[in-house]
Amino acid sequence: MILIFTGNGKGKTTAAIGQGIRAIGQGKKVFMIQFIKSESWPTGEEKVIRELAPRFTLVKGGKGFVGIMGDKLPREVHKAAAEKTLELAKEEILSRKYDLIILDEVNVALSLHLISLEELLDILRNLPQDLDIILTGRGAPKKLIQVADLVTEFREIKHPFQKGVFAKIGLEY
Amino acid sequence: MILIFTGNGKGKTTAAIGQGIRAIGQGKKVFMIQFIKSESWPTGEEKVIRELAPRFTLVKGGKGFVGIMGDKLPREVHKAAAEKTLELAKEEILSRKYDLIILDEVNVALSLHLISLEELLDILRNLPQDLDIILTGRGAPKKLIQVADLVTEFREIKHPFQKGVFAKIGLEY
Repeated sequence: MILIFTGNGKGKTTAAIGQGIRAIGQGKKVFMIQFIKSESWPTGEEKVIRELAPRFTLVKGGKGFVGIMGDKLPREVHKAAAEKTLELAKEEILSRKYDLIILDEVNVALSLHLISLEELLDILRNLPQDLDIILTGRGAPKKLIQVADLVTEFREIKHPFQKGVFAKIGLEY
Repeated sequence: MILIFTGNGKGKTTAAIGQGIRAIGQGKKVFMIQFIKSESWPTGEEKVIRELAPRFTLVKGGKGFVGIMGDKLPREVHKAAAEKTLELAKEEILSRKYDLIILDEVNVALSLHLISLEELLDILRNLPQDLDIILTGRGAPKKLIQVADLVTEFREIKHPFQKGVFAKIGLEY
């Protein structure tokens, strides 16, 4: 089954992690690979997920925010990292070692044209049977929504950043 | 900070669990108490959360679906359970033992008039400083949204139940 968590509201990545927690509790094996997000920004969730290995595996394949928040990396560096991340995702999908695979922020990588939508659609058309896959990130393209079984749009109704509050440890990362 | 995850889309409870995972990874203590959901329906997430005790504590205070899915319990039984759950939530909030408290499905308990909105608002007006609280469930009332700092609406864009697919182990529970 293909699930998409998209929209501009908070909770997409944490919802995917919660799905991973639920799945391993039912004896399933989970692989989560993150686009955009990089090793250089440690998050609370990764410390806990590492404890849950090998049931839950996390790989951070990104190079950080692209073109915002002081990012000074050339676009080619982000593009190469995203393409490598998609390549690794494909390998793990085809390995049949997992029951649930999460491509975190893949929609953002698509929106920024760091990876090819056609390549991702091709991977999704050839998913092993019984594998569930969750695609997160704002701005999921229509073609992706068409092939998905379940899509939730996370809509921001209210956010403290609107009031100028900064990211809070343990809540935002 | 008061966070609300509402709307008819999938992912609200798993997003709250993911927030809990993130928080304990940053050294925080988390307490999750579930309205509606009962001990008699074991979920994947609870097995993993129990492993993470005492950093992450889960209490299921409900008696199951109310008035649907073959529920035959008198309404008074559901109401008494929900009131007891809110009472316990209040105690744990005031105990200052936790950094994050999740009231799962509390919005549903409110919509069904199993608990009093005024009582919940009163608890929220007297939250200990630095405590974060997440309220989940569809149908969050306007008065609750007004006092929240962050609100995400989970909108169902597509759901396999629309096509007659049944709940899948590891994904839905």
